Amino acid sequence: MRINRKRLEESMTALGRVGETPKGGLNRLALTDDDRRGRDLLVRWLRETGLTVTVDQMGNIFGLRGGREPLPPVLMGSHADSVPTGGKYDGQLGVLCALEALRSLDDHKVVTRHPVGIAIFTNEEGARFQPAMIGSGVMAGKIPLEDAYNARDRDGVRLGDELERIGYLGPEPCVPRPIRAYLELHIEQGPILEEEGLPIGVVEGIVAISWSRVIFHGVQDHAGPTPMRIRHDAMVAAAEVVRGVREIPRRLGGDMVSTVGRLDVTPNITNAIPGRVSLAVDLRDPEDAKLDRALAMLDRVVQDAAKGEGVRQEIEHYWRVPRTPFHPEVVGAIDAAAKSLGCGHRRILSGAGHDAQYMAAICPTGMIFVPSRAGRSHCEEEFTPMDPIEHGANTLFLAARDLAGRAG
Amino acid sequence: MRINRKRLEESMTALGRVGETPKGGLNRLALTDDDRRGRDLLVRWLRETGLTVTVDQMGNIFGLRGGREPLPPVLMGSHADSVPTGGKYDGQLGVLCALEALRSLDDHKVVTRHPVGIAIFTNEEGARFQPAMIGSGVMAGKIPLEDAYNARDRDGVRLGDELERIGYLGPEPCVPRPIRAYLELHIEQGPILEEEGLPIGVVEGIVAISWSRVIFHGVQDHAGPTPMRIRHDAMVAAAEVVRGVREIPRRLGGDMVSTVGRLDVTPNITNAIPGRVSLAVDLRDPEDAKLDRALAMLDRVVQDAAKGEGVRQEIEHYWRVPRTPFHPEVVGAIDAAAKSLGCGHRRILSGAGHDAQYMAAICPTGMIFVPSRAGRSHCEEEFTPMDPIEHGANTLFLAARDLAGRAG
Repeated sequence: MRINRKRLEESMTALGRVGETPKGGLNRLALTDDDRRGRDLLVRWLRETGLTVTVDQMGNIFGLRGGREPLPPVLMGSHADSVPTGGKYDGQLGVLCALEALRSLDDHKVVTRHPVGIAIFTNEEGARFQPAMIGSGVMAGKIPLEDAYNARDRDGVRLGDELERIGYLGPEPCVPRPIRAYLELHIEQGPILEEEGLPIGVVEGIVAISWSRVIFHGVQDHAGPTPMRIRHDAMVAAAEVVRGVREIPRRLGGDMVSTVGRLDVTPNITNAIPGRVSLAVDLRDPEDAKLDRALAMLDRVVQDAAKGEGVRQEIEHYWRVPRTPFHPEVVGAIDAAAKSLGCGHRRILSGAGHDAQYMAAICPTGMIFVPSRAGRSHCEEEFTPMDPIEHGANTLFLAARDLAGRAG
Repeated sequence: MRINRKRLEESMTALGRVGETPKGGLNRLALTDDDRRGRDLLVRWLRETGLTVTVDQMGNIFGLRGGREPLPPVLMGSHADSVPTGGKYDGQLGVLCALEALRSLDDHKVVTRHPVGIAIFTNEEGARFQPAMIGSGVMAGKIPLEDAYNARDRDGVRLGDELERIGYLGPEPCVPRPIRAYLELHIEQGPILEEEGLPIGVVEGIVAISWSRVIFHGVQDHAGPTPMRIRHDAMVAAAEVVRGVREIPRRLGGDMVSTVGRLDVTPNITNAIPGRVSLAVDLRDPEDAKLDRALAMLDRVVQDAAKGEGVRQEIEHYWRVPRTPFHPEVVGAIDAAAKSLGCGHRRILSGAGHDAQYMAAICPTGMIFVPSRAGRSHCEEEFTPMDPIEHGANTLFLAARDLAGRAG
């Protein structure tokens, strides 16, 4: 009993055209017109598959295939939004493999005890609205609905208004509910599976993640007539933080990663000493306690940078997700499915946050990774070959089927 | 024979309202609607003063008061555009003191041998269109007219199209022409006059200036699952350059200044390793040879940063203005005027570029500085008290009158 590789490839091609960039990547920021077009296409496919489609208050989309008994469903899913110059695999692949698994259940006329369905979550990336994974976060009761509605993009546009504008402000309550299991297939976004030549990663959990916001207030002045001795340059302090953030994993060792991915300068012109620079720091580690130590080091780096340049600093550790272990039963079902397919696999930890992280708070959850070429993602070069994708989709299909319980 | 302080203050207040920011600064980027409104107001005042108003192909505005003989004019002037969150003194003050000097010639029924006039130059700041001082640069024959027309702002809008849109694409050729002298009053934008308690700086010249563009091409990737060992982070390389640029004046000593005022990150989101960072480096020194040494050091800093992070670099030293000495006769006339007023003054060098820099290439040129509070400019806190402004305007008035030759 296998999925249909050709059909899966065709839906990847069709959805990949919505928001495609000239270089073949994807630009489908959450709740934009392209996101709406992608959602419309997916909803059409869900309906054509005979699923019962609902949309909740956060624009999360669900499609359910009935089971023999009125039990909590097995859900498979991911997200359909992308980063600005992202790829066609992050998120979309998990959604389309879930759809393919549901179609395959029909092909093989499988009757399950539990219903089986798909979940497509809103604004997973956090590229347009922050925090990331906001749709699953509200569903898991971790983010208040009103806070999510009031999230604003860089132009000040409200998430709630955009949901309404694109027609995905649904009537279903976005609240925790009984779910038999949640399964998410996703690209690894790291180099390990490719390096080891394995198509499948059986994900045991997600590392702890912390996001911090740092702002330096210097003295904006003319770059020419202002002597070096009287300068208070917010950019110089920010550069020290970039440097210090890079040092933290070197000092703490292990698998910690640290990134300054965002930096905004005011007024950002060649001949003005920057008066204000804000930057975002992303820190991750498998251990919560080590992440705490990293944050204390970051505080020190920011204080030293501010002191050295005579500028005022603000720092806020505004988002934190603890280490998330996945459910042994779900991890075991994925492992068994990969084994039964006879394809290479290994246990692995996710370095990226996923909707599965929030879902793990309300139901037994697990993830399947497929390899990322050169470990790259969040870029237009993001790529996964079809062979491991086929293995991944089959693993998802078989694990979901088994967790739902075969009834015929 | 003195200018009218009250009238000057009134015109400063009126022009300062056009493009005023909530904090009392100025946001009047070149060739925007606010720039048009400022120009319209100035042209009305020039006409009311009985001047012959012309606009050239670059939107530079001239207003001429006839002399007794058909000789080249003495011009006073500056610019009316501002940086995005700038102040009400940079540029505007020189324009309004020039207007006040012309009005005062009428008050005192002065007849001069040479005509005396005002020049208001387009896009001096370089905040919207680059390079800076583009209007005077074309007039001096240093920038081709077509290049200036094709300059584009961040949204890709052409300078030539904006000139036409706001109605200031004039018919007069923008070319060098005989000019008796060019005089520009400007705020110092540095701390020296205030520190020494002097109202007047007699400017002897402008330092050499160089602008460079640096781009790092790293590998854009996900901030979570990408191990530190495989990263090529354009932000980390850029931070090394910010640091290295700050070091250059420390190593070369003297009055050199260095600034990274602009830095742009792609994709600039919290959870992506930056794939591309571009930054602008501004270097200035009184000596051309020392600036050459600084640029060689910058090249090395950029190479080392790229090598250290394994990213590709581009560097372009795209704008250079050599040290500009002002004309002894004009500097002498300013000095004599300040002396005759009995107000404190000193010789000084300008650390900022000004339209006077280009004008010096085609006619005898000089500048008058008035103090900047705390040396600050290109910010909303920019301020000069009225007492030194009055001294400056009187110095400008008397120097221009003397250079034009009294004929009655």
